[in-house]
Amino acid sequence: MSDFQPQDPDFAKRVRASFRSQRVMSTIGAELTVVEPGHVEIELPFRADLTQQHGFMHAGIMTTICDSAAGYAAFTLMPANSSILAVEFKVSLLRPAAGQRFRAVSRVKRAGRRLTVSEMEAYAIDDTGAEKLCLTGLQTSMCLQETDR
Amino acid sequence: MSDFQPQDPDFAKRVRASFRSQRVMSTIGAELTVVEPGHVEIELPFRADLTQQHGFMHAGIMTTICDSAAGYAAFTLMPANSSILAVEFKVSLLRPAAGQRFRAVSRVKRAGRRLTVSEMEAYAIDDTGAEKLCLTGLQTSMCLQETDR
Amino acid sequence: MSDFQPQDPDFAKRVRASFRSQRVMSTIGAELTVVEPGHVEIELPFRADLTQQHGFMHAGIMTTICDSAAGYAAFTLMPANSSILAVEFKVSLLRPAAGQRFRAVSRVKRAGRRLTVSEMEAYAIDDTGAEKLCLTGLQTSMCLQETDR
Amino acid sequence: MSDFQPQDPDFAKRVRASFRSQRVMSTIGAELTVVEPGHVEIELPFRADLTQQHGFMHAGIMTTICDSAAGYAAFTLMPANSSILAVEFKVSLLRPAAGQRFRAVSRVKRAGRRLTVSEMEAYAIDDTGAEKLCLTGLQTSMCLQETDR
Repeated sequence: MSDFQPQDPDFAKRVRASFRSQRVMSTIGAELTVVEPGHVEIELPFRADLTQQHGFMHAGIMTTICDSAAGYAAFTLMPANSSILAVEFKVSLLRPAAGQRFRAVSRVKRAGRRLTVSEMEAYAIDDTGAEKLCLTGLQTSMCLQETDR
Repeated sequence: MSDFQPQDPDFAKRVRASFRSQRVMSTIGAELTVVEPGHVEIELPFRADLTQQHGFMHAGIMTTICDSAAGYAAFTLMPANSSILAVEFKVSLLRPAAGQRFRAVSRVKRAGRRLTVSEMEAYAIDDTGAEKLCLTGLQTSMCLQETDR
Repeated sequence: MSDFQPQDPDFAKRVRASFRSQRVMSTIGAELTVVEPGHVEIELPFRADLTQQHGFMHAGIMTTICDSAAGYAAFTLMPANSSILAVEFKVSLLRPAAGQRFRAVSRVKRAGRRLTVSEMEAYAIDDTGAEKLCLTGLQTSMCLQETDR
Repeated sequence: MSDFQPQDPDFAKRVRASFRSQRVMSTIGAELTVVEPGHVEIELPFRADLTQQHGFMHAGIMTTICDSAAGYAAFTLMPANSSILAVEFKVSLLRPAAGQRFRAVSRVKRAGRRLTVSEMEAYAIDDTGAEKLCLTGLQTSMCLQETDR
């Protein structure tokens, strides 16, 4: 349900292949759950070995799934044969990442020829399925094409 | 070599104990290497299972060590019996995190009673020992005291 | 139309009085147009004497109205006798601020006892009334109470 | 005293001409005081008509001079016939902007072919000449060349 028209009809295949090559994603147990034009979601079950000092998921781990979701949301709209580079991100930590599962949701706010800005949010999901927003932020990524190299 | 006067003479012991309780740090192989007033460093050897799609360390993992370094730089200056909560951070990714080791360096820019702002930087170190700045950013953290609860 | 319950029934009066005391607002010609719980809007007509080198409104001026909108969105939810301090903000510039009028819209994302995070957006409005999002960002502000001093 | 080698020997002339065309700079009374490779400073005397509700300079006005300083620090290193576009910035407000004069200082942290990241700081200067850091942040800007259009 997005207004974006992907340039590459095989965008989802391309995003899924790139996600599989991000080895950190399988290391932490993250799964790519939604790949639509300008919209990507990644889920991560709680794991005690990824926590900070109070037993919640570390903000850096939450940022890891948000950064990938945001880059891939941008990447859905880029041409075939392009690659993507994250340029910067900024994150506000609204609540501790306390839950059984976590869901990173990213939607593109503005797709330019070179630069794309994606909003990123992370939700903590408890054992009743209730969700709380724990992180919100913005990411900028750059499209690199073969001719750039 | 800092101008900051810690309120708690046992600041380094307190920071080291908290670092040990961040389970994600041992999971990814990070070590706390410097704990001085207003200045903390964390090192991380390269690990292929923490990489993104181009074989470099994932920006979220680099952020994980930077966020902890920044929070602990702030925590060195907080009173005994306080705890610390990261509020937000913002990161510019200057170069891919390509190297054999990585060093997160954080120094406090401004320590207030409630809020502290720390600068954070990450360097990639190659096999000759040469360092390149690959990430720079800022973090805000909040001091929580027993009486706040 | 917001879910937030203001603590101070006179929140709008308090926000309007504070806005009037921000002398920069009348200097640049900004008007406070919406004051609801957790939601504030400020409008600014185009003025050639506030432009950057390409004849568009300077990003710093757009940030000026967004920062005030975000702080006042947070302030609607704070107690009577409190004051507010902006702590940090971060902004992505999506398009040049080209238009006849500009509208800064801020909504609170998370209101805590001490800290509030507000989303801020700025729209450029052309002579047909069409709006384009030109800036998106986040602001953190802190509530100061009399007992803090 | 910088390590950067400008591509355009007339960089200072180009930056000064662009600054003069930013009409907001003369409106608020800002002066361009330093233009070196990768380093620009802008000064602004206190003006009561640019203040926020506590009588200090509005953070958006401080951001206005910082954003211009950061963009021009990047622009010193860009080729002749290029133009510059600010992409995003992020700011931590360390102290109220209380003083008689204000000095925005920006230095380039990383200059790429397309994107440049500049650090930006603002100092408040009191009547004894003492300076206090009141704002620190980062800006990303993009180089546009004739062939891009």
